Amino acid sequence: MPRKILVIGAGKSTSYLLDYFLQKSTIEDLHLTIGDLNPDAIPDAISNHPNCSILSLDIFKDIERKNAIQQSDIVVSMLPASLHFKVAQDCIVYGKHLVTASYISEELKTLDKKAKEKGLVFMNEIGLDPGIDHMSAMQIIDRIREKDGKMLLFESFTGGLVAPDNDNNLWNYKFTWNPRNVVVAGQGGAAKFIQEGTYKYIPYHKLFRRTEFFDIEGYGRFEGYANRDSLNYREAYGLQDVLTLYRGTMRRVGFSKAWNMFVQLGMTDDSYTIENSKGMSYREFVNLFLPYSPTDSVELKLRYYLKIDQDDIMWEKLLELNLFDAQKTISLSHATPAQVLQKILEDSWTLADNEKDMIVMYHKFGYELNGQKKQIDANMVVIGDDRVHTAMSKTVGLPVAMATLAILNKKIVTPGVQIPIKREVYKPILSELKNYGILFREYEVPYLGYNPDSVAS
Amino acid sequence: MPRKILVIGAGKSTSYLLDYFLQKSTIEDLHLTIGDLNPDAIPDAISNHPNCSILSLDIFKDIERKNAIQQSDIVVSMLPASLHFKVAQDCIVYGKHLVTASYISEELKTLDKKAKEKGLVFMNEIGLDPGIDHMSAMQIIDRIREKDGKMLLFESFTGGLVAPDNDNNLWNYKFTWNPRNVVVAGQGGAAKFIQEGTYKYIPYHKLFRRTEFFDIEGYGRFEGYANRDSLNYREAYGLQDVLTLYRGTMRRVGFSKAWNMFVQLGMTDDSYTIENSKGMSYREFVNLFLPYSPTDSVELKLRYYLKIDQDDIMWEKLLELNLFDAQKTISLSHATPAQVLQKILEDSWTLADNEKDMIVMYHKFGYELNGQKKQIDANMVVIGDDRVHTAMSKTVGLPVAMATLAILNKKIVTPGVQIPIKREVYKPILSELKNYGILFREYEVPYLGYNPDSVAS
Repeated sequence: MPRKILVIGAGKSTSYLLDYFLQKSTIEDLHLTIGDLNPDAIPDAISNHPNCSILSLDIFKDIERKNAIQQSDIVVSMLPASLHFKVAQDCIVYGKHLVTASYISEELKTLDKKAKEKGLVFMNEIGLDPGIDHMSAMQIIDRIREKDGKMLLFESFTGGLVAPDNDNNLWNYKFTWNPRNVVVAGQGGAAKFIQEGTYKYIPYHKLFRRTEFFDIEGYGRFEGYANRDSLNYREAYGLQDVLTLYRGTMRRVGFSKAWNMFVQLGMTDDSYTIENSKGMSYREFVNLFLPYSPTDSVELKLRYYLKIDQDDIMWEKLLELNLFDAQKTISLSHATPAQVLQKILEDSWTLADNEKDMIVMYHKFGYELNGQKKQIDANMVVIGDDRVHTAMSKTVGLPVAMATLAILNKKIVTPGVQIPIKREVYKPILSELKNYGILFREYEVPYLGYNPDSVAS
Repeated sequence: MPRKILVIGAGKSTSYLLDYFLQKSTIEDLHLTIGDLNPDAIPDAISNHPNCSILSLDIFKDIERKNAIQQSDIVVSMLPASLHFKVAQDCIVYGKHLVTASYISEELKTLDKKAKEKGLVFMNEIGLDPGIDHMSAMQIIDRIREKDGKMLLFESFTGGLVAPDNDNNLWNYKFTWNPRNVVVAGQGGAAKFIQEGTYKYIPYHKLFRRTEFFDIEGYGRFEGYANRDSLNYREAYGLQDVLTLYRGTMRRVGFSKAWNMFVQLGMTDDSYTIENSKGMSYREFVNLFLPYSPTDSVELKLRYYLKIDQDDIMWEKLLELNLFDAQKTISLSHATPAQVLQKILEDSWTLADNEKDMIVMYHKFGYELNGQKKQIDANMVVIGDDRVHTAMSKTVGLPVAMATLAILNKKIVTPGVQIPIKREVYKPILSELKNYGILFREYEVPYLGYNPDSVAS
């Protein structure tokens, strides 16, 4: 009898995940069942595979869902995060392991005790970010601790960007994942982190003006802005005493300064709708956020408002997006500013068929060992194959797939609702990811801290 | 039998309200009952008055509350806005009129039909702002319409400020009402208004940089920033077709630019708490919002961050508040940034015993009459008597009191949940307010619109 894997939700991001299972299906004795609301969208190469079955599955139909879960040995939920709980409850009832790439919800945490009692592994946050970030950070942190090093500083930044070969617009950016997440990034409260033992707070409207820079060998310079809560994993990583804890998002240098123009104008606001958005021109949209004038142009009003000199590259970045076009119109009714901005950006920032994405991750570890301060920098760069086989779907899908197989093969055995910070999880997976070109380069560098040039006060 | 008025809630703002009733009590045959949770705080001059009874009243005790309401002829609720509904429900049951100075809640609106069926007047928003603003605006708008004028533009600004004699700090501002409302003013969504037929939106972080100026004869120049929703009264005022509708808050010129420093830093944020706020120095508080540096001072970091030149008056405004003091400490635990900022400002901006406040209201009406564009400017300035008998409590309390008596005397008879925009309401009240020095000065001025100097494009 083959081991039965049920994957629920076969969206665009699952290509690598499904391929992995099918490639291993004969040698590992696996049968893959894909349950999806629209099974017709699954490529023939997958659905015709002898070790694969396709199931038309509406997870809101209890009997369908329970049947499918009961007949599997392990369940992989690639549904939106809010839908995992339904699946997880059934996994408890029927005694099945569960794997997801999503953040653990408060709801899901409540199943921890039951999962442990039944010896079930509920592995979450095992994609890219969260996922590879947890595993790669914990591998180095554990190694520092084994040598009796004391962690002083941890910074971690991840970015989904366009590959250097296709990096051909002034923003050095194209959408490679969910554009909406990019447009509303950073909203919902001040960003919070610790630097040298001091709490720091950045309000949303300053977030994109407080960036840090990173150089990545062979790929040049990047910048990072703070995520909303850098302190979330303080306990999980055992970093309660660390002096600096800072997590963020990476972009090419200059993106954040330019993005800040949209923030300042109010174009990223998703909290109200514009009554007459349908049919409004891009130019009229811009003018909503500028003072009325009977004489002055939208262009000059915007330059004056944001203090953009006439020879400033910021201006060219706006022109590149056709932001002042009086002919191009918005097709959405009652749209929020953020929804309109997203549509305008999608005109310019959508990957073409032959274009590739790039994932960049950067960690910085400061620690003290035998009275000496030391630092390790680690980075990972992954380039996608094409617009479908993106670096994003590869780095999200493969860790999920590998964890699933490792649970079936009893290499991951610790039960409970968890994230991949245990050695039994990260060690085999990070090792196997190297075979797919997903690997970290590590550099021992002098401890720089926050005064690299020893500037005097 | 005297007519029985029940006033629920006898806070600081009710001095003029209570005095009005007692002064009229003999000639108008009134008996006043004051129901309050802490009746001991009511001054002897009021509680010993022969036509006044004091009731210890907890409005959450249903029997107490219902009894008090049942025994009255009309109820004035000076409770916080969220508590009016309980009182209003009883007023429906026992057939009593109701007067409040608060914005009508959605909940309260649902009682409109029942109030009308029972012939009850539920008068709301009859203080200063909302209140005198509604009445004074509608009086002039109605007059313009009577002459067959067509409204083109309506702008309205109100400010609670310090009286010129006591205007002796760099901010030209002191707290004269609820400080918390000042600190969080403008938060909760973009400000929305119409200028010359075009919707305009200002995000919170730009609100204090988009001010307008007004000159008020005898009092100099003021500035105004937009309220969150200028369009709320479009229907009520019958201004659906007006090209410009803009409501806002008045300050002395320069206040908003300086206040914007707090907004930019993130100090007005009320959405999260600072874990270690208790015992933190003012200086440490400021440093929470600035990048870490091992060498640079909080002062220089702030100047650089906000681009404040060394000879800029903005800097002096911050120094005046002792913002960089390392000895002064915060006594609040787990306070939000807004709560800490409020405490720091209260050190400097509290009215002294002998100091007076000032209320300023400014309306601008643009209209077309016989093919000609015309404009009326109207303003009101009221100076307080002392720190207790403030212009604020006078302008809030007197309209409430006058409306109450007018309802008892059947001069206001139209039933239903309403605001004071009907002639039967505003005409007698505005007329009586003049006797108390609360009056508008009107100026016929050339129609300025948005291009007063006819500047060419």
